Amino acid sequence: MLKLYDDEFFMRQAIAQANLAAADGEIPVGAVVVSNDRIIARGHNQTERLNDVTAHAEIIALTAAANYLGDKYLHDCTLYVTLEPCPMCAGALAWGQVSRIVYGANDDKRGFMRFGRELLHPKTKLEFGVLHEECGALMTSFFTGRRG
Amino acid sequence: MLKLYDDEFFMRQAIAQANLAAADGEIPVGAVVVSNDRIIARGHNQTERLNDVTAHAEIIALTAAANYLGDKYLHDCTLYVTLEPCPMCAGALAWGQVSRIVYGANDDKRGFMRFGRELLHPKTKLEFGVLHEECGALMTSFFTGRRG
Repeated sequence: MLKLYDDEFFMRQAIAQANLAAADGEIPVGAVVVSNDRIIARGHNQTERLNDVTAHAEIIALTAAANYLGDKYLHDCTLYVTLEPCPMCAGALAWGQVSRIVYGANDDKRGFMRFGRELLHPKTKLEFGVLHEECGALMTSFFTGRRG
Repeated sequence: MLKLYDDEFFMRQAIAQANLAAADGEIPVGAVVVSNDRIIARGHNQTERLNDVTAHAEIIALTAAANYLGDKYLHDCTLYVTLEPCPMCAGALAWGQVSRIVYGANDDKRGFMRFGRELLHPKTKLEFGVLHEECGALMTSFFTGRRG
């Protein structure tokens, strides 16, 4: 059976969020939170606009999802994000007990995986590499553009 | 010479913040941000009230300080917090490049030190154990009260 809503579908929605960040001169990272095949929250990096180092795509999407649900725990939710979360975001997602995290491109320098999966909640499932080329290209073109 | 404003003085202000959290039924953690011997921001844990897992004392104080300074980096600032920060907060403080962190009580289970100081910015100075008995007693009496 054809599955309309798969990980690639939702990662494309996260990429659309990242493009909003890029258009605003922000480091292009985007995220969506999905529950029962529905997007319940979106976020893109706004650290410059909000003058706030914590305004990462994941944090914005996580808090928006909690508002939507009226529950600070994101059980039965998947967070899609274009880039490997940083330790701050991994820690926030752990507190939020997100059921599943799917990220696109690796972030070897700033990503949480350097510290290990123990930063996440033990029940959180993790997947990565979905549309990693498109997700990585967002970052490459942003930083190439800045140096140009 | 008598030093009016020392680490204990400011930690007592963080404890006052923690008491505000306790009075509100929140896990009693408080924080202040100090620049040039002046408190520029305060925060206490509000995860229940705000229904937001990211509303830790440190995050609230960090973003309030950035608002006050008009600068998302907290150079020349010390953050005092009653409890060892969690990895989320350590990661946020790293992004904020806080000059110095002073915490009171250890948090062996949830604290960032399990993952090591690499979670902090390399330039951030770290001190701990200031008024650790008072800071730890806040937590003990809160959780004892909840079990009672």
